[in-house]
Amino acid sequence: MTAEQLFQQIQLKRSFLCVGLDTDINLIPKIVLEHEFPVYEFNRQIIDATADFAIAYKPNLAFYEMLGAAGWISLEMTVNYIREHYPNIFIIADAKRGDIGNTSKMYASTFFEKINFDAITLSPYMGIDSVSPFLEYRNKWAIILALTSNNGSADFQQTITDNGVHLFEDVMIKSKAWGNENNLMYVVGATKAEMLTKIREIVPNHFLLIPGVGAQGGSLADVAKYGMNKKCGLIVNSSRAIIYADCTNDFAKVARLKAHEVQNDMSALLKQFVKS
Amino acid sequence: MTAEQLFQQIQLKRSFLCVGLDTDINLIPKIVLEHEFPVYEFNRQIIDATADFAIAYKPNLAFYEMLGAAGWISLEMTVNYIREHYPNIFIIADAKRGDIGNTSKMYASTFFEKINFDAITLSPYMGIDSVSPFLEYRNKWAIILALTSNNGSADFQQTITDNGVHLFEDVMIKSKAWGNENNLMYVVGATKAEMLTKIREIVPNHFLLIPGVGAQGGSLADVAKYGMNKKCGLIVNSSRAIIYADCTNDFAKVARLKAHEVQNDMSALLKQFVKS
Repeated sequence: MTAEQLFQQIQLKRSFLCVGLDTDINLIPKIVLEHEFPVYEFNRQIIDATADFAIAYKPNLAFYEMLGAAGWISLEMTVNYIREHYPNIFIIADAKRGDIGNTSKMYASTFFEKINFDAITLSPYMGIDSVSPFLEYRNKWAIILALTSNNGSADFQQTITDNGVHLFEDVMIKSKAWGNENNLMYVVGATKAEMLTKIREIVPNHFLLIPGVGAQGGSLADVAKYGMNKKCGLIVNSSRAIIYADCTNDFAKVARLKAHEVQNDMSALLKQFVKS
Repeated sequence: MTAEQLFQQIQLKRSFLCVGLDTDINLIPKIVLEHEFPVYEFNRQIIDATADFAIAYKPNLAFYEMLGAAGWISLEMTVNYIREHYPNIFIIADAKRGDIGNTSKMYASTFFEKINFDAITLSPYMGIDSVSPFLEYRNKWAIILALTSNNGSADFQQTITDNGVHLFEDVMIKSKAWGNENNLMYVVGATKAEMLTKIREIVPNHFLLIPGVGAQGGSLADVAKYGMNKKCGLIVNSSRAIIYADCTNDFAKVARLKAHEVQNDMSALLKQFVKS
C-alpha cells in the first residue's frame, strides 16, 4: 500500500484508527475458547465488528508467540482473513525486530512474503543494515521506533547525542535518508504529544504510528493538534480500550461501539485539520 | 544457570564456545530434508557432534520464524533435546526483543517458561521497563545489545551522549544497575576487539556474548586478550563457520572437527589468561 492509498482510506472512513490485536488468551471470553484457534476467532469477530471504523490492524507478536505453533497459525489466519475480507486495510506486524543484515533480510521475507503484512515495527539500535532489507520491498513499510510511550523511553531515547539533538531525533534525522515517505514511518508515543511539533520539523510528511492513546493515557486531540499534516500523517493505535472494552459474550458489539466513538472523534479532527 | 555454574562448564570443557544454530532450511544437506522437521534434525546432529566442545547453543529466531508454525516446533524440539541430553549447556534465544513492560513480560514468559531458554538477547532502545521483566526470573539471563558487529553499529551505538560516552557505553553504565552479574550479560561484536578494554572498565565482571568470530571476521586471540576476566567472562559465538563448514552428508563430522579446532584455541587462551 502506498501513502496515497492509505490517505484515501483515511478520507473514505474519516478515521485514522489502528486496532491493536494484542489478543491475550487469558483475557478473551469463554465462549471463544471453545474454538480450535480461539485467538484467531476472537480477532475475526473483532475485525468484523470494527472494520468500518479502522484503517489498520496491528497484531503484537508477543501475544502470538506465547502460544507457540498455535499462536503462529492464529497470526497467519488473522492476516489472511483481513486480506480476504478487507483488502484495503493496512496490516502492521508489531514485532520490534532488528538484527544484522542477513538476519533482517530473513525477517523481511517472513513478514512481507510468507505472511502478507504491509508493515513491521523495527528497533533502530543496530543501524542502517538492520532496517534497509525491509525497504527493498515495493509498497511495504518499515516503522522505526523513535520515541516510545513507556517510562524507559527516558533512558536512552531522550539523551542528547553529539549532533545536539535527542537520540530519538537523531534516529529520525539519519534514518529518513535510508528510505522515503512511501516506505518509512515512525513510532511516536502519544503521551509525549507536545514533542510532535519538533518531530514534524524533522519529518513533516512521514506517517507516524501513535500508540498510547486510550489505556496508556494519551490525548487524541493533542496528537492531532501537534502531529497532523495535510495528508493526516497519523495512524493512532488503540488496543485494550477497544478489544477488551467488554469481556462478556457482547465483546464484539461493545468493541464496535468503542471503535465508532473513536472514529467519531477522529472524523471531527480530520475536518478541523485536513482539507478534503 | 548461575555465573559460577557457567564458569565451571568453561573450566570443565576448556571452552567458551557458543554454537549459533542459524539453521537455514535452504542451506542444510538434502539427506536431512527427508525428516519431518529437517531444521530440528539438522540441529540434533550438530548438537550431538559439537556438545563436547561447546558450552552454549544459540538459535537465532529469524531462522525459525521464517518457517512459521513448523519452525516454532523445531525450535522447541531443539531446546528440549539439549535440555534432555546436555543439561549443563547454556541455551540462548537470539531474539533481540524489547517492548513496553507488559509485552516484555509476555516475551519473558514465552522464552523462559514455555520454552526453557537460559537467556535471551534484548535491544536496549526502549529502556528499563523493556528489560526488567526478564530479570525477575531466578537463574535466567538478559543479554543486552551493547556494541554489535555490523556496519550499522556506527549509526547510533557509537554516537556520543550527554554523559560524555558512546551510547553503547551509556547502555552498559545505566543498565548494569538494573540487574547484576548473575542475570545480565552484554553483546559486544568481535570486530571491535580493541574496544573491549574500555568495556571492561565499565563491566569488569559481567559475561560478554561475542558474535562475529569466524565468518564475520573477528580475531579470537584479540577478544581473549582485551576481553577476558578472571572467570573467563566470555561466551564466543560461531555459527556459519561451524554448522555450514561442510554441506555434504558429512556435515556433522566436519562441524565436530571445526568446533574441536576452536575449542583447542580457546583452551590455550584460557591457560594463558585464566587461573584454574
